[in-house]
Amino acid sequence: MTEQSYRLGEIAEALGAELRGDPDIRISGLATLQAAGPGQISFLANPAYGKYLVDTRASAVILSPASAGDTQTNVLLLDNPYLGYARLSHWFDPAPVAAPGIHPSAVVDPSANIDATASIGPQTVIEAGVEIGAGVVVGAGSVIGARTRIGAGTLLRPRVTLAHDVLVGERCHILSGAVIGSDGFGFANEKGVWHRIAQLGRVVLGDDVEVGANATIDRGALDDTVIGNGVKLDNLIQIAHNVQIGDHSAMAAMVGIAGSTRIGHHCVFGGASGVAGHLDITDGVHLTGMTLVTGDIREPGVYSSGTSADTNRQWRKNAVRFRQLDVLARRVKELEKKIEG
Amino acid sequence: MTEQSYRLGEIAEALGAELRGDPDIRISGLATLQAAGPGQISFLANPAYGKYLVDTRASAVILSPASAGDTQTNVLLLDNPYLGYARLSHWFDPAPVAAPGIHPSAVVDPSANIDATASIGPQTVIEAGVEIGAGVVVGAGSVIGARTRIGAGTLLRPRVTLAHDVLVGERCHILSGAVIGSDGFGFANEKGVWHRIAQLGRVVLGDDVEVGANATIDRGALDDTVIGNGVKLDNLIQIAHNVQIGDHSAMAAMVGIAGSTRIGHHCVFGGASGVAGHLDITDGVHLTGMTLVTGDIREPGVYSSGTSADTNRQWRKNAVRFRQLDVLARRVKELEKKIEG
Amino acid sequence: MTEQSYRLGEIAEALGAELRGDPDIRISGLATLQAAGPGQISFLANPAYGKYLVDTRASAVILSPASAGDTQTNVLLLDNPYLGYARLSHWFDPAPVAAPGIHPSAVVDPSANIDATASIGPQTVIEAGVEIGAGVVVGAGSVIGARTRIGAGTLLRPRVTLAHDVLVGERCHILSGAVIGSDGFGFANEKGVWHRIAQLGRVVLGDDVEVGANATIDRGALDDTVIGNGVKLDNLIQIAHNVQIGDHSAMAAMVGIAGSTRIGHHCVFGGASGVAGHLDITDGVHLTGMTLVTGDIREPGVYSSGTSADTNRQWRKNAVRFRQLDVLARRVKELEKKIEG
Repeated sequence: MTEQSYRLGEIAEALGAELRGDPDIRISGLATLQAAGPGQISFLANPAYGKYLVDTRASAVILSPASAGDTQTNVLLLDNPYLGYARLSHWFDPAPVAAPGIHPSAVVDPSANIDATASIGPQTVIEAGVEIGAGVVVGAGSVIGARTRIGAGTLLRPRVTLAHDVLVGERCHILSGAVIGSDGFGFANEKGVWHRIAQLGRVVLGDDVEVGANATIDRGALDDTVIGNGVKLDNLIQIAHNVQIGDHSAMAAMVGIAGSTRIGHHCVFGGASGVAGHLDITDGVHLTGMTLVTGDIREPGVYSSGTSADTNRQWRKNAVRFRQLDVLARRVKELEKKIEG
Repeated sequence: MTEQSYRLGEIAEALGAELRGDPDIRISGLATLQAAGPGQISFLANPAYGKYLVDTRASAVILSPASAGDTQTNVLLLDNPYLGYARLSHWFDPAPVAAPGIHPSAVVDPSANIDATASIGPQTVIEAGVEIGAGVVVGAGSVIGARTRIGAGTLLRPRVTLAHDVLVGERCHILSGAVIGSDGFGFANEKGVWHRIAQLGRVVLGDDVEVGANATIDRGALDDTVIGNGVKLDNLIQIAHNVQIGDHSAMAAMVGIAGSTRIGHHCVFGGASGVAGHLDITDGVHLTGMTLVTGDIREPGVYSSGTSADTNRQWRKNAVRFRQLDVLARRVKELEKKIEG
Repeated sequence: MTEQSYRLGEIAEALGAELRGDPDIRISGLATLQAAGPGQISFLANPAYGKYLVDTRASAVILSPASAGDTQTNVLLLDNPYLGYARLSHWFDPAPVAAPGIHPSAVVDPSANIDATASIGPQTVIEAGVEIGAGVVVGAGSVIGARTRIGAGTLLRPRVTLAHDVLVGERCHILSGAVIGSDGFGFANEKGVWHRIAQLGRVVLGDDVEVGANATIDRGALDDTVIGNGVKLDNLIQIAHNVQIGDHSAMAAMVGIAGSTRIGHHCVFGGASGVAGHLDITDGVHLTGMTLVTGDIREPGVYSSGTSADTNRQWRKNAVRFRQLDVLARRVKELEKKIEG
């Protein structure tokens, strides 16, 4: 897509990498070792892919000193080649860059305070009292509710909804369809009938937060829902009201966190895992995919639940036995008594 | 946010509460016992929070006669303090109130019948034959399909989609990103190729229904999908075609109900639980989080499936044994024969 | 809704069915055997519904020669009556048909290439370099990113997002709220801080692909995310970056496929099932609902995981025992040694 190219020496310098090879060759793209062709740069981060190094047609490869060996092509040496790839990837991003200014089709309340360097896309709605910082991009079709504040450098992709009184930090990245600040699911029951509770709290997002496509983060009932700095949330995640997530935690797609639960910092949750409400999960907790947590977790580490897939024929036999497991354990106890007694 | 304040006596009267204290103090906000300050009212519903009562700085507290004791602050006595809180919460809701009328940026078919007291937000689309009742709010960026009817007092948050021929009752609350009336997932297979089946049924929502952010409710294949009065559905819920949900049932986020299943009234489903298709679930069934139901449930009560989270190290040992459970049970049987036989 | 009616003979001819009865009666609707009235046609595909055949008030029924027996009403004989129903269903679809042309409220970049027979709905955004084929419908409020191409006959319902550089085949059906081409969830970690990786790949959808409401399909990190011909994806599905799905596979709602996993053709995944990343799933694999797959599957067949729902009282006893399962197995081993040894 992009026609732009860069000198390899320029790339090495920007990444702080040691260059072995020709600083003057031009690099116009980034690809995997298998797919890269002349004029493209690649990287080796996972040793399992080392076998592709010998045959790669890439003009240059980012790798660690330990993996470099006698590689024939130009190399950039970095202790963390994956990080080098991450940084360089943005140079070749074909995503269009939004121009500053307010699109004529946008509906913007006169009381909104929008930095001149921000870009307000077509068909958007910016309500009263909104504050939008420098370099912010509000993607097409997005709706920003009253008094919501968006920090400098934050990028909202098309069709994002921020409800009223939401605080978004700097350099956040909110993907399409995400809904932040919708009403938490709170009801009081009277004789079997549910009465809705107005949700008076806010959502507060720190800096450098990622919110995935069609994810939902509910506003707090009374206090705020709080997402820490550097938190990364994948697509279709649900964060209920009054949840708190510590800095730099990351959650894969379809994770659900129920109301008022507090998650520590540097946690990593696998896809479709879930945490029940009103729990405390300490720092550094990892959940494998589809794990359900129904109690506090006080020790860092890896946690799992469920069973692993089997043929349906085998699974059915075992799943039936699960329903008799307590009885089976009692029978074993009985046998032990008879033999030892 | 709101500057509005109310006399405590006025609040007591509206809630039907017995007031012990000064009816003339002014209340300008609602907060938890821990967070409340002067001028704010709080409540005590969960006895576990009773410990915060003694130190609360709230100017008044809603609580039950049994919890009142010798509370020093002003109190409002109610048998169901949580319900009192629910009712009062709406007095302090900072959400902007939409003005009646049709925003100039809305695209409204001339054949649509829109009550003069309704509010049609910016960047919306109202198709032919739509009927919108008194006091309805259609949030910014929403799309209302042909011939769909929305009952009086219903509130659609921004970016809601109602497809054609959907019936929405009165006082419903549809959150951002919800899609109601999309095509059910119906296909006929011919030699391995799927042929789409047009979905001719509707979605019919009763009164006082809540539909969460980014939730999806599919239209029926031939008959309708029917959601009863007072049903509350949280975010990211999937209701497949021809599902029927009885009055006043509530489902937490990420629940999925497969096609043609009938759910009774007053059911409560925990987050991420799922019910397979063509089943009957009777009234008053509660599912704990992430439970999977694959057969009819004929008795009210609480149901569960799955296993609870453990350290990954422990879990792996046990999960392997699950795959051998049938064999283990047979070995126990064999031992019993040998000992008893 | 529709007033249109058709001669039964005309229907028989279009479906290639043998007609037993009056070719001149007029059919104006399609309904189940139980609900159908005069002037309506029904079908019998599932033998379990055969009991409704005798009392149906339908003017005609599509069924297989084996089921026809001495049916009193007019019948259309087809080997695959369900397929006949699928084809006929489109004749009675009440969904409004979009008129060709670009709605005046649409924001269309002058460089977009839009076929004259395509329909671009109100409040849409079409970015630079987009190519839209013959007969395509872009539903209200949709956003089509730069350089994205949409093949002839594809139908986008309202409020769909296609990001930049997405390829959509012919005759696809994308439901409301779907997000295709959002950034994959890729980050490099440096001392506990996540650094975002720009996602340079595309999403490529084959022909006849269905994408459900609020489903998300992420663009590839470097290579593309590829969805084969005839693939059917239900609502709220997550397809991560670089996933490949083979032709004619179908996935029910809430399925999640993690990054770089390859799914074969003709697979069928039940609702809320999940597949971990970097796996190979061969052709013809069926997963039952909520199954989690964490390893390659090399043989076609049906696979399952988890446990089935039980009363919470029973389940709790058994779930506790699951946590002791390895120990129980060792105790049984010990007993066997004592008795046999």
